[in-house]
Amino acid sequence: MQVWKQYQEQHKERFLEELLALLRVPSISAKPENKQDMITCAEMVKESLLEAGVQKAEVYPTAGHPIVYGEIMVNASKPTVLVYGHYDVQPVEPLELWDTPPFEPTIRDGKIYGRGTADDKGQFYMHVKALETMVKTDSVPLNIKFLIEGEEEVGSSNLGTFMQENKELLKADVVLISDTSMISLDTPSLDTGVRGLSYIEVEVTGPNRDLHSGVYGGAVANPITILAQMIASLHDENNHVTIPGFYDDVQVLSNEERVLLNKAPFDEQEYKDDLGVKELWGEKGYTTLERTGIRPTLELNGIWGGYTGEGSKTVLPAKANAKISARLVPGQDHEKITELIINHLQAIAPPYVTVKATPHHGGNPYVTPIDSVEYKAAEKAIEASFGKSPIPLRGGGSIPITSLFESILNCKTIFLGFGLDSDNLHSPNEKYNIENYYKGIETIPYFHKFYAEMK
Amino acid sequence: MQVWKQYQEQHKERFLEELLALLRVPSISAKPENKQDMITCAEMVKESLLEAGVQKAEVYPTAGHPIVYGEIMVNASKPTVLVYGHYDVQPVEPLELWDTPPFEPTIRDGKIYGRGTADDKGQFYMHVKALETMVKTDSVPLNIKFLIEGEEEVGSSNLGTFMQENKELLKADVVLISDTSMISLDTPSLDTGVRGLSYIEVEVTGPNRDLHSGVYGGAVANPITILAQMIASLHDENNHVTIPGFYDDVQVLSNEERVLLNKAPFDEQEYKDDLGVKELWGEKGYTTLERTGIRPTLELNGIWGGYTGEGSKTVLPAKANAKISARLVPGQDHEKITELIINHLQAIAPPYVTVKATPHHGGNPYVTPIDSVEYKAAEKAIEASFGKSPIPLRGGGSIPITSLFESILNCKTIFLGFGLDSDNLHSPNEKYNIENYYKGIETIPYFHKFYAEMK
Repeated sequence: MQVWKQYQEQHKERFLEELLALLRVPSISAKPENKQDMITCAEMVKESLLEAGVQKAEVYPTAGHPIVYGEIMVNASKPTVLVYGHYDVQPVEPLELWDTPPFEPTIRDGKIYGRGTADDKGQFYMHVKALETMVKTDSVPLNIKFLIEGEEEVGSSNLGTFMQENKELLKADVVLISDTSMISLDTPSLDTGVRGLSYIEVEVTGPNRDLHSGVYGGAVANPITILAQMIASLHDENNHVTIPGFYDDVQVLSNEERVLLNKAPFDEQEYKDDLGVKELWGEKGYTTLERTGIRPTLELNGIWGGYTGEGSKTVLPAKANAKISARLVPGQDHEKITELIINHLQAIAPPYVTVKATPHHGGNPYVTPIDSVEYKAAEKAIEASFGKSPIPLRGGGSIPITSLFESILNCKTIFLGFGLDSDNLHSPNEKYNIENYYKGIETIPYFHKFYAEMK
Repeated sequence: MQVWKQYQEQHKERFLEELLALLRVPSISAKPENKQDMITCAEMVKESLLEAGVQKAEVYPTAGHPIVYGEIMVNASKPTVLVYGHYDVQPVEPLELWDTPPFEPTIRDGKIYGRGTADDKGQFYMHVKALETMVKTDSVPLNIKFLIEGEEEVGSSNLGTFMQENKELLKADVVLISDTSMISLDTPSLDTGVRGLSYIEVEVTGPNRDLHSGVYGGAVANPITILAQMIASLHDENNHVTIPGFYDDVQVLSNEERVLLNKAPFDEQEYKDDLGVKELWGEKGYTTLERTGIRPTLELNGIWGGYTGEGSKTVLPAKANAKISARLVPGQDHEKITELIINHLQAIAPPYVTVKATPHHGGNPYVTPIDSVEYKAAEKAIEASFGKSPIPLRGGGSIPITSLFESILNCKTIFLGFGLDSDNLHSPNEKYNIENYYKGIETIPYFHKFYAEMK
């Protein structure tokens, strides 16, 4: 609509400035020392919603970090869209690999660099500015609710309870999330699902204290060696996961579905060049798009043990630790898989060591039906702003809370993401292209318009 | 001798106080931030030698940390003993496991707790106080030189050059070192050798940046997983090291020698209970005493990669690193083994990653002939102060510089150690029993006396 475009063009500088202010708050949910920053950030989100034109907004404390809720109810007969996003961000380590400080957002080559730019401040804030566009041009086509949480990066531990206790408040027809990516602005795509997640931590304990590796080495099991042997045994020579039962519940796609999925544009050489690797790796019998979309995976997210400082120390450490997570696909249940992984690690522990495995967090996989009104509204919105139809894709990431929207609120979820795979999510130099930010603000009002018309 | 015993009894409180003062200096050679502490410590050592009665003492700067030299030359016709020790200590991490701060030496139950108590400040300082005893009782039986360095814990990188450049200054008939342990005060033992060391660091690089484990997991090799697989492959199911050529030059002991070695008192249950492990581990076909004495070993000293902080982060890291060291036995050459390990790690690196392996430091193994005058003098010294003969043992640790004493100074080395295996060397809560400290001061003058008489 010309009136939206015009409003957005006039205010684009301010739209950017406001996002930069939000990015400056170090809202790292995993770090206890950022607790106050989380509160500051939640208040900023609430204020931004009020300024954009919601009728009410509130910060709800939880047992963890606060949840921000806001709403604009235009007409009880119209459908209601629940916009979900998160204002918390990932930790920033390793800090020395950032070209500019993570919480001093910097613009270079049309990209905003900083923690949370794409995941998810830059993306949920598009919804705030899209709302402002519709409110200021007097064209809000339906009821919109905002649910912006502060614990997505640590497993949304308190959101389930909040949803259970506030079912009426959150009542909606569909959940709209911008926290995923598309292929490119030239080749827009829509994620039709997210993988589930099962995240655990394992600690291998050998002797009751760190030992001198010369005096005891060779006579006492080294927890690092044992942990490495355990990790190595988790994949076979075809890179299949060896944990018994791991694949049992995986819904197998038909050949037809696999052919369709592999039609998405994918240039292996470009992919390898971008990542700087000579060869790709993965489960035998599957393409890269399948490995990251429809197959469950098991990844090591961290490992530590012994002396890790400068120089050398001849220690045989008492402990070695690792963080391990699995991405799950439709059919798999995160609680069951977490239990399988933990039991397996304990089962393969040799008698020389003690193994303690504990669950971190998890969530179930989710798939959006592409023949639904919701999906078609999103497709039309992309067509309106991009001039071409989006390619449906299975995303590799996880938004564990999605399955709860379905079970508690009885809502389907639409993933209207504007990030790119190259945004360095969870990594140093996270970035978000300014053009993608503006394109999102342009597209979102169309979704509301078409959904109001089609529902 | 009654006169020594009497002098030591009168000054024992001061002998302890002086050691505590030396222990308070955080002389960690591996840490650049302790450079000034190293200089302070070297000066203290020089002063203590002068106060004990050497005729001259000097601090020699090197490309790294300074070396302290001191001497008392009583008679050119008498033999000369070169006492070697080191004033540098290991890093103190993990700091949270220390019951009392590492550089605030604390006495509990007759033991001095603190970094460097046994390794090696508490042990080389026995020689300073033994010298004082002989000087003050006018009974120095031969010429004594002191060579106390500050880089033993980081590979003695500059000691070889110093020895080459000061052959005349360091000229001696035997090297005497107290930097090893004995079975107990009830069962004194003498190490007849130390193992060599080959220490390397390996870095496995996958993608050119940290990645989101959901977006790329399953499609790109995870450096932690690959490193774990590489580490796991370094030992076979019998815990033999699989690196080609690793055992090639190992001097095989005769059955007779093995029988003799296994006569040393060893209580497996006590050993396991002390370490808190249910089962021991090691190379098939060898006893624990053999595994730690006459067999080469390969140990993981550290590992790190990905997210190691609190909570969870779903990252597929760009890199994973490990510190690996081998203990070597007679016949093996540390430069050859270092090259074998590095080449092997590069050879087994899969094409998905880049492997960089770099040497840290090393040293050759060393064995003292037990039929030598030197060894017999040490044996007699133990008999004089303990009232029983010492058991000859092969030590598991390494004093890489020992082989240089032989090649550069043409000197055999005697290991007159008074530590215990339970002293927590290189670990939190390092300690040295006060009784062992005094017993060392009592024994050392006997060594000089008998060696002067027998040589």
